[in-house]
Amino acid sequence: MNRRSFLHTSTLSAASIGALSVSCSPIAALSDRPSDQTYMGDFAAKPLEIVRAAFIGLGYRGKGHLEFFATLEGTEVVALSDLYADNIDKSLEILKEANRDTEGVGRYSGSETAWKQMLSEVRPDVVFISTNWINHAPMAIESMRSGAHAFVEVPLATSIDELWDIVNTSEQTQKHCMMMENVNYSRDELMFLNMCRKGVIGELLHAEAAYIHELRWQMEEQDRGTGSWRTYHYAHRNGNLYPTHGLGPVAQYMNLARGEDQFRRLTSFSTPARGRALYAQKNYPPDHKWNALDFKGGDLNTSLIKTELGRTIMVQWDETSPRPYTRHNLVQGTAGILAGFPTRAAFDGGFEGLTSDHHRWIQGEQLQALYEKYDHPLYKRLNSAAAGSGHGGMDGIMMYRIVECLQQGLPLDQNVYEGALWSSVTELSERSVASDGMPQDFVDFTRGDWKTTKPLDIIV
Amino acid sequence: MNRRSFLHTSTLSAASIGALSVSCSPIAALSDRPSDQTYMGDFAAKPLEIVRAAFIGLGYRGKGHLEFFATLEGTEVVALSDLYADNIDKSLEILKEANRDTEGVGRYSGSETAWKQMLSEVRPDVVFISTNWINHAPMAIESMRSGAHAFVEVPLATSIDELWDIVNTSEQTQKHCMMMENVNYSRDELMFLNMCRKGVIGELLHAEAAYIHELRWQMEEQDRGTGSWRTYHYAHRNGNLYPTHGLGPVAQYMNLARGEDQFRRLTSFSTPARGRALYAQKNYPPDHKWNALDFKGGDLNTSLIKTELGRTIMVQWDETSPRPYTRHNLVQGTAGILAGFPTRAAFDGGFEGLTSDHHRWIQGEQLQALYEKYDHPLYKRLNSAAAGSGHGGMDGIMMYRIVECLQQGLPLDQNVYEGALWSSVTELSERSVASDGMPQDFVDFTRGDWKTTKPLDIIV
Repeated sequence: MNRRSFLHTSTLSAASIGALSVSCSPIAALSDRPSDQTYMGDFAAKPLEIVRAAFIGLGYRGKGHLEFFATLEGTEVVALSDLYADNIDKSLEILKEANRDTEGVGRYSGSETAWKQMLSEVRPDVVFISTNWINHAPMAIESMRSGAHAFVEVPLATSIDELWDIVNTSEQTQKHCMMMENVNYSRDELMFLNMCRKGVIGELLHAEAAYIHELRWQMEEQDRGTGSWRTYHYAHRNGNLYPTHGLGPVAQYMNLARGEDQFRRLTSFSTPARGRALYAQKNYPPDHKWNALDFKGGDLNTSLIKTELGRTIMVQWDETSPRPYTRHNLVQGTAGILAGFPTRAAFDGGFEGLTSDHHRWIQGEQLQALYEKYDHPLYKRLNSAAAGSGHGGMDGIMMYRIVECLQQGLPLDQNVYEGALWSSVTELSERSVASDGMPQDFVDFTRGDWKTTKPLDIIV
Repeated sequence: MNRRSFLHTSTLSAASIGALSVSCSPIAALSDRPSDQTYMGDFAAKPLEIVRAAFIGLGYRGKGHLEFFATLEGTEVVALSDLYADNIDKSLEILKEANRDTEGVGRYSGSETAWKQMLSEVRPDVVFISTNWINHAPMAIESMRSGAHAFVEVPLATSIDELWDIVNTSEQTQKHCMMMENVNYSRDELMFLNMCRKGVIGELLHAEAAYIHELRWQMEEQDRGTGSWRTYHYAHRNGNLYPTHGLGPVAQYMNLARGEDQFRRLTSFSTPARGRALYAQKNYPPDHKWNALDFKGGDLNTSLIKTELGRTIMVQWDETSPRPYTRHNLVQGTAGILAGFPTRAAFDGGFEGLTSDHHRWIQGEQLQALYEKYDHPLYKRLNSAAAGSGHGGMDGIMMYRIVECLQQGLPLDQNVYEGALWSSVTELSERSVASDGMPQDFVDFTRGDWKTTKPLDIIV
């Protein structure tokens, strides 16, 4: 049993991840759906009175999901799985603090097949997967095959082939597979969604999305933790490796893959790769394993997306450069613009005494008027003092909605195709970068059925 | 004599501009320079004790240039040319207010060949050209052939063929042809240049540039003025029609075409075209000429540039959408980031007690410390209270430097190749948009000699 190759890739590392970056398999062609599969765009599962959940991967993110889940009524934690037993122990503590009985909770750790054993023995209703990227696809697929709905950390998978496998499995098993894009539940993103739905900025024409978050410090995690496996991705892949936090929200503003429009084409360029090697040189001895890596992934990647309606989206990614955090979160329409980091807005004709035209941003304290008028009903419901739900943060709101939709038998807020499309930007950008900017066509995982899919409408 | 076809194109309009947008002439191949031409990268002309200048085009921009020029010692205004006699009259008033003798000033107006007559009769040392876009190239070329240095408003020309003609003429005649990119002389841009030269943000990897400036109101100018001819460009061309204000400064931060690096490749997407037609529908009767146009130019264009060193630049253009003005003006290096609109900066390790790391922007009042330490010497010289020069604005500094370089026989701050390269983004973006995002290679107007060209170094 090789513990090191289970939930992180410090041993898989170079060879296996390098294979991703030079992958040359042709993009799967649009084709008729096999007769044993059913489109999942507006899929609603049978209501679950009690949501019986298992968790695979109980590091930082997994424990966070567990903590929110444990506060919700009509739920049960049936099993916990992680390579490391101490993560199980800490998770049990979390359950105890939430006044949960932990005696019957299945505990699976210590081997790279423990999670499979868990799936077959426990048969949970849903599985939350918060492991390293390359385990997302196999774990989601196996979870659905075992009869569970799968909820997967971002990105949904690391290649288009894997994403097809996930989509096909979801269509075969009629199980949800939701990529848990938590940023779609952040206050500003929910408000912007609400404003776009109300037509406040007119017809949407352009958006900008990013995950610019300097995370060089994760290289400190050399044997365990995100840096221990993500560092190899930085070294061996060149593109946008983490597109969904910025892209998910703007895709839903624009109803991409939901009735109105669809992703169509992408071009991408990366900067030279500098920051990771500089960081390794500065912080580790010459013979350290990080100094043995040849970092190929450009520090910042910029991709341009063109949609079926001809709208454009700029998506950036940079986890290396020394600059402040931003997700951009910008959407521009014929009647105004909404933007993030810092939050600001401008409208043709101005806004209710605050501005008289679009030449000046509404920002800072002025934003209060915007929140009062346009805060999303979901955000307001989960933040009202009376309710005292404590679910105001994006992770809390997301988990609340997941459980609510499962209990009521509603379609989820993010269907399997959205997770696949948003995640597919990674391979498309890698291909475009590798071909010196050649445009890459998106794969339509919906096989054309996005035209029939309803826009997201969170009714509260 | 057709007055209407001289300095604006309300009659040329659709047909002639449409021809630009569907231009398919192959991009001129890199080739050996003809033996009668000499590279102009670091060209310095014979010093001019008195700079004898003529002005072609005395609308808003031309009058502005004249006003700054007239304040400078060692200069003479020898002739004025404009289609409209009243622009000549107003310009003479400007000269009188500057205590200039106007008696000997040549006055040429009323015909579309008046400027040619002026060139041959007056033989000025330098010519300032501030006419509509399609006249830039013929006027610059004829000015150089008549023995004058040409100074041309942005963009330098509207097609790559015209840009080659300008470059070749400059090399044949050994006359300067500078595109007057005034933004390179703005305070922040000068400071950022100074900081990049000092290595404050390390190795430069990425930049962002824009001209986002809502100018729908110019459509009010229906018979005369910018809107009267620019509106046809919006209607018939689809790309980045006005790239240089944002791009010029970041190109000089990066030493593009100056020894270190060169433009290499570009991809581009535009949004759908909506705003101009909406504006026309709202503000003009159905049978108005603006409502007869089929606007093809997307409201916002986003282009991605890749350089020889692999660095990236995002360039945007939008003169239509209702949003606040921005030029982005962002440059990112291995040790920090500088950005504009609003001005802000962040540095690895923080900055002198203001910040302790790169996670927080230095902005607002904190910027004072940055200006104190890094304001460009040129800006400081022209803004010192003692000097009282009144040239602190970008237009004033630019004119001061043009005259200073001419009088001292120095190379200009912007050589003919820079104007050509920055302006060529327009045709390259049009080609990329027309081919659904296909990358377009830059033309190297220097024929490889950029490697020998010195970085811009403004010694003060």
